[in-house]
Amino acid sequence: MLDAAAMRGEATPMREADQPQSLLMRFGADRPLAMDAGVALAPFQIAYQTYGTLNADKSNAVLVCHALTGDQHVANVHPVTGKEGWWEVMIGPGKPIDTDRYFVICPNVIGACMGSTGPASTNPATGRPYGLDLPVVTIPDMVRAQAMLIDALGVETLFCVIGGSMGGMQVLQWAAAYPTRVFSAIPIATASRHSSQNIAFHEVGRQAVMADPDWRGGRYHEAGVRPEKGLGVARMAAHITYLSDAALHAKFGRRLQNREAPTFSFDADFQIESYLRHQGRAFVQRFDANTYLYLTRAMDYFDLAADHGGRLAGAFKDTRTRFCVVSFTSDWLFPTAESRAVVHALNACGASVSFVEIDTDKGHDAFLLDVPELFSTTRGFLAAAARARGLR
Amino acid sequence: MLDAAAMRGEATPMREADQPQSLLMRFGADRPLAMDAGVALAPFQIAYQTYGTLNADKSNAVLVCHALTGDQHVANVHPVTGKEGWWEVMIGPGKPIDTDRYFVICPNVIGACMGSTGPASTNPATGRPYGLDLPVVTIPDMVRAQAMLIDALGVETLFCVIGGSMGGMQVLQWAAAYPTRVFSAIPIATASRHSSQNIAFHEVGRQAVMADPDWRGGRYHEAGVRPEKGLGVARMAAHITYLSDAALHAKFGRRLQNREAPTFSFDADFQIESYLRHQGRAFVQRFDANTYLYLTRAMDYFDLAADHGGRLAGAFKDTRTRFCVVSFTSDWLFPTAESRAVVHALNACGASVSFVEIDTDKGHDAFLLDVPELFSTTRGFLAAAARARGLR
Repeated sequence: MLDAAAMRGEATPMREADQPQSLLMRFGADRPLAMDAGVALAPFQIAYQTYGTLNADKSNAVLVCHALTGDQHVANVHPVTGKEGWWEVMIGPGKPIDTDRYFVICPNVIGACMGSTGPASTNPATGRPYGLDLPVVTIPDMVRAQAMLIDALGVETLFCVIGGSMGGMQVLQWAAAYPTRVFSAIPIATASRHSSQNIAFHEVGRQAVMADPDWRGGRYHEAGVRPEKGLGVARMAAHITYLSDAALHAKFGRRLQNREAPTFSFDADFQIESYLRHQGRAFVQRFDANTYLYLTRAMDYFDLAADHGGRLAGAFKDTRTRFCVVSFTSDWLFPTAESRAVVHALNACGASVSFVEIDTDKGHDAFLLDVPELFSTTRGFLAAAARARGLR
Repeated sequence: MLDAAAMRGEATPMREADQPQSLLMRFGADRPLAMDAGVALAPFQIAYQTYGTLNADKSNAVLVCHALTGDQHVANVHPVTGKEGWWEVMIGPGKPIDTDRYFVICPNVIGACMGSTGPASTNPATGRPYGLDLPVVTIPDMVRAQAMLIDALGVETLFCVIGGSMGGMQVLQWAAAYPTRVFSAIPIATASRHSSQNIAFHEVGRQAVMADPDWRGGRYHEAGVRPEKGLGVARMAAHITYLSDAALHAKFGRRLQNREAPTFSFDADFQIESYLRHQGRAFVQRFDANTYLYLTRAMDYFDLAADHGGRLAGAFKDTRTRFCVVSFTSDWLFPTAESRAVVHALNACGASVSFVEIDTDKGHDAFLLDVPELFSTTRGFLAAAARARGLR
């Protein structure tokens, strides 16, 4: 169920960008965010959600890092779409990340559009949305901002940092940048650097957005329009990469949509076409097009080894963090080889690391879906880490 | 080198559509093309090129079927781009398809834009380009038209039909529809039906074209514009699928384009971005956007088993054609499993079939590239077929 404003095509995400229906941490001129682009961003804000209760010695905090099109609404009804949180299967009372036991924090990343400072936020210097005036954001920028949030919440050490895809990149960056603040880490379906093919798919998405005349150089908000067609095409292309050939074959095959025979036309004859068009339409109702440019760019730029003299092991030197690296057999966007490279680097550092490759045909999206082996892996790893941490 | 008109952005392909710089076979009202969409298309025309000499008993004709973005200019300089033919590595004197020995015919497919009747051709009923008024074209339609061309050329039996990708679909359709007219067949990097994932990628490309306001419902010719941005995005997305992750990694990796450090912007920092943008720009200078819609649709609809009661073997019952099926290890658009399914069906019919899976990292595009094993396979298979055919 979309909310009424979204149904009318109004820019509901725009309101969330400045006044989110979330917890909000504001950082003033005295606490700027040092960005990789060389800019000190101030003021800025982080919208976040929490679940469960922080214990007395503040040792049970789990930081959940969201993916490209995710946000902080991980285990509650989404304020724009009215749908359930994107990781309800994983997080809640009695769930693998058990909110009866752990205090879960999920911040919206810097550069996003659900309340943390991003291109849809109002630029205090102009009173208009930043648009492309916001410096390009990187994964380290996101993590640096999250560390400031954690500081403000009075949490010194995170019991666990977990996330999939772009979230997994943040997990790796957390472990590399703040080794003493991360007790355990679960990077899922991710990589230590974005591949050439993945940069290529992102570039197609960005070109699709920027080709839409309603994008207007990123100034569509003021014009009262949105580059819906371009962003829809970008989403459609990306969505294919989140699934697997096998999953598409099983789910749709060559079945026709509500018809007995092909129409010999450019209608959505095939179910897969109808499904993709729906994915495109639904996405543009909840997501900001410039944010799509910024977050894909952040992923493109991510290269943990390059930031450590070209050696990935250099990123994890002397780490005492306990790692559980997870990949999926049918994920061709972040194939198992990418996770294995991370595991090899961790092994080279003598780190404590478990590696689980889960056999599934669900593709990259498996980390968001009902995959029992992911749940049992997470539950078991966290239980062992809790014992080591001395959590009751 | 682009020709002067193309450099000025003029619609040179438009002129080719009606008055191609090719051999041309016109079919009048007395010889309509029976199309799967239920329409008898008349008049229509086929532009084609030939190489070599037809022998006295007309037994040495090789039909080359081109792929989605190919055309009849297989072994001569292209009249629009000024570049060499797309299969010069394969076809010519002393080449694997030796024009000193064989008579090569390559027709532009129906629905294309280089002189055979397609959406860019003038509709004789209106005096305007067909646009979307042309019935949707299918692979069987293309092959039916080619059979009429071959009839007109006085060739009863083709010594060989060969092609890759969409060309390979035509090869399979030829063998299924005209078994006694095909002595040998070489379907390369193809499938007997388009997969769900492949339909999905095509749908993204079509939506990108149709999202461009300059598409104008397919009536852009009359408006003097072209949906270049949309078609460029479609080409970029498709181009990724023609390569392999490994090839992209080897060719581009994460290398930057003419710069030492990332610019923290949306410029084409990475070589892969620059390369893809170039591919998009070059393509729109030589290709018609509506043709892109038609030919992707033709591939989507192709399903040889469905046309034979759901059994692929039904398509090849009692065939006496000699087959050589070729796939490439790194082709994820038409993976080896698709070729293997064709081979299994042929085996079930007791057909004469060789199957070669070539180990290469070049991806789907391998069929167009300098892949020595493809050349030796083709040369050897044709030599054996020529002996069986009694060619000197």
